Amino acid sequence: VGAPLGEFELIAAIRERIERAGAPASVAGLVLGSGDDAAVTVPGGATATSVDAIVDEVHFRMPPFTPGDVGHKGLAAALSDLAAMGAAPGEAYVQRGVPERIAEETLLELAEALGELAAAHSVTVAGGDLVRSPVLFLALTVVGHAEGPERLVSRGGARPGDLLAVTGELGGAAAGLALLERPELAQGLEPPVAASLRGRQLRPEPQLAAGAGLAAAGATAMIDLSDGIAGDAEHLAAASGVALAIEPARVPLQEGVAAVAEALGRRPLSLASGGGEDYELLLALPGEREAEAREAAAGAGTSLTVVGRAERGRGVRVSAGAESAGWASGFDQLQPRSHRGSA
Amino acid sequence: VGAPLGEFELIAAIRERIERAGAPASVAGLVLGSGDDAAVTVPGGATATSVDAIVDEVHFRMPPFTPGDVGHKGLAAALSDLAAMGAAPGEAYVQRGVPERIAEETLLELAEALGELAAAHSVTVAGGDLVRSPVLFLALTVVGHAEGPERLVSRGGARPGDLLAVTGELGGAAAGLALLERPELAQGLEPPVAASLRGRQLRPEPQLAAGAGLAAAGATAMIDLSDGIAGDAEHLAAASGVALAIEPARVPLQEGVAAVAEALGRRPLSLASGGGEDYELLLALPGEREAEAREAAAGAGTSLTVVGRAERGRGVRVSAGAESAGWASGFDQLQPRSHRGSA
Repeated sequence: VGAPLGEFELIAAIRERIERAGAPASVAGLVLGSGDDAAVTVPGGATATSVDAIVDEVHFRMPPFTPGDVGHKGLAAALSDLAAMGAAPGEAYVQRGVPERIAEETLLELAEALGELAAAHSVTVAGGDLVRSPVLFLALTVVGHAEGPERLVSRGGARPGDLLAVTGELGGAAAGLALLERPELAQGLEPPVAASLRGRQLRPEPQLAAGAGLAAAGATAMIDLSDGIAGDAEHLAAASGVALAIEPARVPLQEGVAAVAEALGRRPLSLASGGGEDYELLLALPGEREAEAREAAAGAGTSLTVVGRAERGRGVRVSAGAESAGWASGFDQLQPRSHRGSA
Repeated sequence: VGAPLGEFELIAAIRERIERAGAPASVAGLVLGSGDDAAVTVPGGATATSVDAIVDEVHFRMPPFTPGDVGHKGLAAALSDLAAMGAAPGEAYVQRGVPERIAEETLLELAEALGELAAAHSVTVAGGDLVRSPVLFLALTVVGHAEGPERLVSRGGARPGDLLAVTGELGGAAAGLALLERPELAQGLEPPVAASLRGRQLRPEPQLAAGAGLAAAGATAMIDLSDGIAGDAEHLAAASGVALAIEPARVPLQEGVAAVAEALGRRPLSLASGGGEDYELLLALPGEREAEAREAAAGAGTSLTVVGRAERGRGVRVSAGAESAGWASGFDQLQPRSHRGSA
């Protein structure tokens, strides 16, 4: 461990750890990378740029999060926005606010996991910043690419008649958070099921391959599920100027979510609809593209489930009755994610 | 003031305040702006991307900073990196970490000043984020443009024989900080001089016009003075693989810096060489381009002063003797800027 590193040595050590984890030192179009006043790129077509921040004691706690979980999740959440555009990820910029009490090894472990996720998606860390802060935070900027802007999928293109679908299964991140906060809730679960739920909270996977495939398969609008399907569907409906009719009974729940919900005395649907951070994709697509979209999802190693339909009107409509019990409204990002309420 | 705004209302109010301040809602190349998963652009040539963060109690305190000063300075520091590349600024992305105790009006005042600076430089705020945080911080990402990467000036192009020059006058930001922390030091100064020094600390101006002009006038390497000329010259020397011989007596000091230094019992040069945040430009250029570079600086409303020369070798060399007394080494960004030591 040795003597404390100075700023420049620490930045160099972080960079080395990111590259040792396999993150590419450069990508197509990058002319000048980390270490100058700015990174220089020559993008070939359209770029998609998104920012996301995570803050200690608000979006995570260590423990149960390890430093590696924090690095992974910070970058994953940012990349998830590129997935929702159907963009191919390219560059990441990482700003770190670091309290004096944080050990250098913590920062290096964080960098290593961030580098591993970057490597998995061929993302280069093209720039960054390290500043003192009373609280640990990461602020990420990610840039993705597409041949042209028409290849990118906004939230605003859903049309009445389109199907509404989600990738994968929902509720796992919220159930995983409950297990991390109250380990005794895992008693009735198979250990691999509990581990999978916890992993959903700690190390979410951005659905980049699915997003790109679904964009090519004709998705008309797409958003990532960071706030929960109830709230995120409202965003998509508002941006597209349509109503979204959702059948709650069709929302796919991850294995173990129902059991955790029962142990919590909550409805399973509340974990899927109001629990954020599943980082799956919610998309609209014309009915005639459904088979193609299913193939695209399968090709990306995930599933596609139709949960409703776009209609004329405004807002989100869920069928009344028992099967919609637990449908939540979206949680407010200004509320700590780990303290989000159920509806 | 009324009832507390929810997340989406607050974001909408911030966006409105930024646009009311005159920041363009779009710029050339921007296809999809704030409010979707990502902003979409079609850059025409090369892009320069830089990130910077400022944190309450580390990089500023309110008071003496007003919320507007914080918004202005955060964006100014980020844009200064684009100035150092000679890039034309285009898009900014603003991530805000906001404690619950911060009033909404504080965030709106911050947004307004940030929007005014964005307007002054035709920058669009293309995206942003608002998260809860125990401490107020801003993390900025700025993107600039150039016809091609060869038009952008890195830190790495200085060649032996090049002149070394700075724009404007130095030491003002450090002297201004001293006046803000110890108002009694201003007693011997003309009020407009003291006000100008304080303004240098609170509302620095990024030298974007000068940077673009100097890039066109043949600058071979350029860096903005965020850490003080001593440390930033070391960065430029290292990146270019040259030695920089600097004549401290030629370093231009802002009016009042010497008087503040005397009141502090410090050498005037220490405020210019070790005091950061002047956000002037340090550049190398071939001697035969000097007249052209002077014209470019004058056209941007500033001055250009030759302070030394690039030579074969490594590192920064300052002439020994009385005129170099007070030459500082660069301060470490991990140290609070407001607590930086003198050398």
